[in-house]
Amino acid sequence: MKSTSSINNKEYPIPSILDDKKNIDSFIQSNKDKKIVVVQGLGFVGAVMSIVCANSMVQEYAVIGVDLPNKDTYWKIASINDGIFPVISSDNKVDEFFKNTISKNNFIATYDPYAYSLADIIIVDINLDVKKHSSSLNDLEDFEVDLGPFKKGIEVISKNCKEDSLILIETTVPPGTTEKIVKPIIKDGLGRRDLAKEKIKIGHSYERVMPGPNYIDSIINFYRVYSGINEESSNAVELFLKTIVTTDDYPLTRLSNTNATEMAKVLENSFRAMNIAFIVEWSRFAEEANVNLYDVVNAIRMRPTHKNIMFPGIGVGGYCLTKDPLLASWSRKNLFNSEKLASSEHAVKVNDKMPYDCFTFIKSQYKETLEDKTFLLFGVSYAPDIGDTRYTPVEWLYRFILEEKPKILLHDPFLSYWDEMNISISSDINEYLSNQIDCVIFSTGHTEYRNNSMLIKKLQSLDNLFIIDTIGVLNDREILSLNEKHIVKVLGRGDI
Amino acid sequence: MKSTSSINNKEYPIPSILDDKKNIDSFIQSNKDKKIVVVQGLGFVGAVMSIVCANSMVQEYAVIGVDLPNKDTYWKIASINDGIFPVISSDNKVDEFFKNTISKNNFIATYDPYAYSLADIIIVDINLDVKKHSSSLNDLEDFEVDLGPFKKGIEVISKNCKEDSLILIETTVPPGTTEKIVKPIIKDGLGRRDLAKEKIKIGHSYERVMPGPNYIDSIINFYRVYSGINEESSNAVELFLKTIVTTDDYPLTRLSNTNATEMAKVLENSFRAMNIAFIVEWSRFAEEANVNLYDVVNAIRMRPTHKNIMFPGIGVGGYCLTKDPLLASWSRKNLFNSEKLASSEHAVKVNDKMPYDCFTFIKSQYKETLEDKTFLLFGVSYAPDIGDTRYTPVEWLYRFILEEKPKILLHDPFLSYWDEMNISISSDINEYLSNQIDCVIFSTGHTEYRNNSMLIKKLQSLDNLFIIDTIGVLNDREILSLNEKHIVKVLGRGDI
Repeated sequence: MKSTSSINNKEYPIPSILDDKKNIDSFIQSNKDKKIVVVQGLGFVGAVMSIVCANSMVQEYAVIGVDLPNKDTYWKIASINDGIFPVISSDNKVDEFFKNTISKNNFIATYDPYAYSLADIIIVDINLDVKKHSSSLNDLEDFEVDLGPFKKGIEVISKNCKEDSLILIETTVPPGTTEKIVKPIIKDGLGRRDLAKEKIKIGHSYERVMPGPNYIDSIINFYRVYSGINEESSNAVELFLKTIVTTDDYPLTRLSNTNATEMAKVLENSFRAMNIAFIVEWSRFAEEANVNLYDVVNAIRMRPTHKNIMFPGIGVGGYCLTKDPLLASWSRKNLFNSEKLASSEHAVKVNDKMPYDCFTFIKSQYKETLEDKTFLLFGVSYAPDIGDTRYTPVEWLYRFILEEKPKILLHDPFLSYWDEMNISISSDINEYLSNQIDCVIFSTGHTEYRNNSMLIKKLQSLDNLFIIDTIGVLNDREILSLNEKHIVKVLGRGDI
Repeated sequence: MKSTSSINNKEYPIPSILDDKKNIDSFIQSNKDKKIVVVQGLGFVGAVMSIVCANSMVQEYAVIGVDLPNKDTYWKIASINDGIFPVISSDNKVDEFFKNTISKNNFIATYDPYAYSLADIIIVDINLDVKKHSSSLNDLEDFEVDLGPFKKGIEVISKNCKEDSLILIETTVPPGTTEKIVKPIIKDGLGRRDLAKEKIKIGHSYERVMPGPNYIDSIINFYRVYSGINEESSNAVELFLKTIVTTDDYPLTRLSNTNATEMAKVLENSFRAMNIAFIVEWSRFAEEANVNLYDVVNAIRMRPTHKNIMFPGIGVGGYCLTKDPLLASWSRKNLFNSEKLASSEHAVKVNDKMPYDCFTFIKSQYKETLEDKTFLLFGVSYAPDIGDTRYTPVEWLYRFILEEKPKILLHDPFLSYWDEMNISISSDINEYLSNQIDCVIFSTGHTEYRNNSMLIKKLQSLDNLFIIDTIGVLNDREILSLNEKHIVKVLGRGDI
């Protein structure tokens, strides 16, 4: 069986005999006297966390990244050992940090759980996913939290780890998970191996990783919250975090138990998700009252107490805001036998539906069928200036439009291929701009689309466009000039 | 008929013949060459706005405050002319500003609409109220917006104002009000008097007045948003605001129409109300999961993008947050024929119910009836460090407890009398602290209650108290020490 890299399309055969001990031992041999960090999960967080540890200025670490030897993930292991980092990033530091680990030879990747048996510190960066049940309109009806893969990951650690290692959970989990799920599994595993249960240290410190231009800095130069299952665990986490975070500028916050840090993570993302959902009704109100909600929000943001009010938009994407409020609600109901968090679930529901709202608005502009039309979407990523399509709201907008059977062209400066949809994306802004186009949709707020006079000039040169700006990238001057030949509509504001 | 001052209990007879022309003319005579500002409404905003105008460092103003000659408001007029400012404030600048107006003789108050006929600038600071229909549990079921008194105020202006005056609405109004209600009334009034309709200038610029230690600064040293019904109106508002706001430090924001500024005001207060409502479910979750939500919120607030997340609490009070989201929703439905703002209405509903949640929590701590108990409430104001009981959530808590027929004692450092409930309040923290007390409730987060070792010592000396902290004024050390003899519960956190 082979595993295909999504970075360079290279195929890596998965070994038929899964034994990587020799490589690991020789790696450890050449990294004598270094503390051994094993990172479980080589996704967006784990891969970068690995090279951050390997680049610590405070403590010499030998870092082993572990992932599963299957079709979807084996290529990451092989790619790292092949000298190719498994995440493309606009942050130059990623490249720099990874190159350092090659010259220092202090980072390898493996599938072999043997690595855990050597670890002083095990960092858990595997996913814990929510499966949503939505109607065809992306209308959240129900959801499941699948703890299975996460539990399996912890079980593997419990069967291999040293009795005095530090296990640091970074995964976003339902509050209560470290105490009620991780701790029992680990202690049970140690017990079965006749190891001391009381020496193990388990902590929780959630990451606030932002893929994008500040990918590395979102770990080393940012605030961290942490906790442990006991005093020793908390102390061990603190000691470790001080080796990777510049705590002089970004002081750590210790909370008194793991429920608290777990809750902090899902609360901060729920706060964000809820504030995005909140502005949806106001966007419609602004359109009706001929108000520019972007200007209104900017005026309100002058107040320090109101800085976090959100702008209108097309929806919420990314891995966290789309599921964390549900993890929280699930936890309260299932781990604490209480009510669900209705307002957090409602926020996800509203946000999930935003692309559909946007689609119906677009459709309402046409009397005729969309079948013969050609749409050009500017932006596929879920957020500005990153090439990340995970749960992007543009996917839903794309799907809804596609159902009407028009032609859809895609542009994104940070993407050449859309994995989830298996289609090519142009990064040349001029490629599709011709009179073939009927409708231009600004769907991601990339900087390249803002104050781009070349783009505006090109759009002016075309005929009879319907231009819809879902995220306020066009300014008044641009809209006025485009309105001379075209029809421009902006979500969250009236006509100008 | 007499009107009684709520400041010094002095009785002022209301004149039987309502003609104040002579006084006004002589005031104008002695303020020659000054621009004349008339402020309509002498409440929390209008009274202070008047002295701010009269103290402008940029422009010499003669200021006339106008209110109605009735039982509830006449005393404010008489009191001002008697040399007593009608609002008690912890802000020393209020006293200073008012004294200046006396020595400069550039501020009088009147009931006579004749004042409007002299005004260059008329500032509208009258109330626009929402009448809530709640069940006995303070459970919002429906509400009405009564535009009547506001419209009457505008009509009086329309019958008296000069055709080229500037009418500046500061009242928080349903979006659409200036354009759809004020403008037609004013133009109609001018038309009936055969005056030019096109010269009148009408603008909207909402106040962000905070009664409290920065009362004056919340006008002169704070950001302002403004608009007008046309370019000339906007320019006139700008010119005026520059004479009272330090715009070098707090630049003005002009929005393109009055709907926008009206929406900005109700949106910013809805944002606040909604974020308070949001944290309610999480407070219960935190209690269940033994998490200190105050610590969690502090940890999250380290992030600039999350600074506005709110703390747990007993509820929402004050004049604005309890009604502005409803004004917005009412406007969308009634002035723009669209849907109501469900999430804003929901926020008010949740917030209104918070005191009841708090009450049920307190009641659940007792197996027996509360009838023989004595409760001591620390704090009656709706917010820390102000003496303002308008819509304070403590009123509802008080009413719920009162239904159980216990004895209730009240303390507040900023109040001696509770107007709405007609009862005395002690400002001596020791007055009620004796073994008569069964339950102490911290109901307002006044600074005096925080880190007050004398208070803690006194509480420690008593026996078997139930202490409930509804707003997190007690710190861990204090709770631990009080827990030795008493039972301490804090809303939004588990036991410690």
